[in-house]
Amino acid sequence: MRQLNDLSTPAVVIDLDVLERNVARMAERARQHGVRLRPHAKTHKIVAIGRLQTAAGAVGLSVAKTSEAEVFADAGFDDLFVAFPVVGQDKGRRLVRLAERVRLAVGTDSVEGARTLAEPFAQAGRVLDVMLKVDVGYHRVGVEPDRAPAVAGQIAELRGLRLRGIFTHAGHAYAQETPEAVAAVASHEGKALALVAEGLRAAGLPIEQVSVGSTPTARHAMTVNGVTECRPGNYVFHDASQVALGSCRLEDCAMTVLATVVSVPAPGRAVVDAGSKTLSSDALRPHAGGHGRILGRLSRIDKLSEEHGVIAVQPGESFRVGERVRILPNHACVVTNLHDRLWGVRGEAVEDELPVAARGRVE
Amino acid sequence: MRQLNDLSTPAVVIDLDVLERNVARMAERARQHGVRLRPHAKTHKIVAIGRLQTAAGAVGLSVAKTSEAEVFADAGFDDLFVAFPVVGQDKGRRLVRLAERVRLAVGTDSVEGARTLAEPFAQAGRVLDVMLKVDVGYHRVGVEPDRAPAVAGQIAELRGLRLRGIFTHAGHAYAQETPEAVAAVASHEGKALALVAEGLRAAGLPIEQVSVGSTPTARHAMTVNGVTECRPGNYVFHDASQVALGSCRLEDCAMTVLATVVSVPAPGRAVVDAGSKTLSSDALRPHAGGHGRILGRLSRIDKLSEEHGVIAVQPGESFRVGERVRILPNHACVVTNLHDRLWGVRGEAVEDELPVAARGRVE
Repeated sequence: MRQLNDLSTPAVVIDLDVLERNVARMAERARQHGVRLRPHAKTHKIVAIGRLQTAAGAVGLSVAKTSEAEVFADAGFDDLFVAFPVVGQDKGRRLVRLAERVRLAVGTDSVEGARTLAEPFAQAGRVLDVMLKVDVGYHRVGVEPDRAPAVAGQIAELRGLRLRGIFTHAGHAYAQETPEAVAAVASHEGKALALVAEGLRAAGLPIEQVSVGSTPTARHAMTVNGVTECRPGNYVFHDASQVALGSCRLEDCAMTVLATVVSVPAPGRAVVDAGSKTLSSDALRPHAGGHGRILGRLSRIDKLSEEHGVIAVQPGESFRVGERVRILPNHACVVTNLHDRLWGVRGEAVEDELPVAARGRVE
Repeated sequence: MRQLNDLSTPAVVIDLDVLERNVARMAERARQHGVRLRPHAKTHKIVAIGRLQTAAGAVGLSVAKTSEAEVFADAGFDDLFVAFPVVGQDKGRRLVRLAERVRLAVGTDSVEGARTLAEPFAQAGRVLDVMLKVDVGYHRVGVEPDRAPAVAGQIAELRGLRLRGIFTHAGHAYAQETPEAVAAVASHEGKALALVAEGLRAAGLPIEQVSVGSTPTARHAMTVNGVTECRPGNYVFHDASQVALGSCRLEDCAMTVLATVVSVPAPGRAVVDAGSKTLSSDALRPHAGGHGRILGRLSRIDKLSEEHGVIAVQPGESFRVGERVRILPNHACVVTNLHDRLWGVRGEAVEDELPVAARGRVE
């Protein structure tokens, strides 16, 4: 069997034991709290890992884009949620074809946007399930809770659509300084969304699903009464930001980047062959702090250009040209999207090549 | 013919008139100053654009990685320089096979690194041309000028290698506050490297090529006596950072990202379907300032997550759901690497689909 040392660098390596433990734990947690688990596939974009998740009990997958849904539908997944406010008749027509072969729902946060999907579905004599996005504090997309009844009411009246439920993403959890603050965001996320659901039901709108998202908030938000579904993504791999946020321990991180030291040009500086084209430029959260931890060392990647990762060598440490290191990235999801394949390993043995089937699907 | 409006968003659009003008201008500039032009293909990673460059007079291409060289060799390019300190016998063996079919040179900045390439070449009874990287102030990789003679001398003695020349990259040009400061960096780049070349020749090392890099410094560094080759990359597309640095005008930017406004959730905020998965997280240089200019507007992309670009809507401007905008990215090279294809347009007409053949080649 191929060994880690046989891989050409840089290479993105997934510890399969850790991956499988992460998948099982989140599934067990969802079961305990009686919520449906619909993991966000954006983190892995890999068919085999999606199958691990459904085998462990996930009801289906969340994806971000229409084109990602197409990839997973082609691979046989039959229950998909596009957790993004999709807008455009061109996308609507693609979704009509998709809805012919899978159970489908799509996010929306405006009547104008919903109408661009309703029209192709109405023309085709079909009905698309939509989920209304509610903003519970991240202030990215989503309607404010007090506008939800009016918008939901108008969307529910559009021919070609059926309002299945509501959803949120508490992305501001990633800016919190302490695990307690993350828990508070999560608790508010679940309670605010459950309250919106009650209001909509009181207004006569049947709300089947009340869906929360994100790995840092999942464990907390899924305990809130009224929450029916949870959509964490990052938990399959975790990363340096999740460690910093207190979402996991270092040993729960499944993804590392294997790199070679290619230059030690001056005291205090060493350079690896993994730059932003491998690790991405995404900052560490909640506080910026380099571009990747080096396993077993105190030194970290301090600067990145596309093909170079510059290590600030800490006193007492040293690196030599040709040496291989493993780097824990700041943000696993964006690393996946930069690579055609990840390598599944157990210890030193390379067990699987994992094609990133939905990589680069932006539409 | 397909029109811009027919493209699904987000889509990366290349204005072919601007591209062709950029290619012609840099080629003409190199001719005027009597230097060889070896453009860095990292910006486009596209076979058709590499062919435009060689048709305009480029002697060959620069690439960053062994795997990129393989892609361009497969496409028929016969003179390639891997402008990176490649390290590793696995890479060395791939380079042996590559050198059988193209004129090849590879960067190095250490005897230890060079040895990992020399061994497979010596075993194969072949010789690899190497270029010694010299650090003229960027402080990333490269030997300090005063160490160059000693390192070059040792590398030149390794069986399996031939020292073709020396090269540098003045990446610190991107941190300069004014066009005058960029010009000063460029002038120093050229002069310092030419001086190193003289020293090496005086020590009995034949130095054929003295090669400088980067789009901001190219026009200046290529005028320096003793410089024989120039390797700008970004100039084919340019981007918002090149405009900010004074390397080009706004109308010289060939790459824009076509995106759809998918949400206008609150006053002062609009969101497009292009996030860091489309635009990258790379900051504007020399000073951070948003994640993309919106053509024809004062408002810019203020925050990014993977699939969302959040516009801070300026007073007096407004955006509506479904509207399409064109975004000038901060850094064109990394945008290319995120996409399987770019779209070549003239005006509103979509003329070409340009497959990004060397996308994601990290090894």
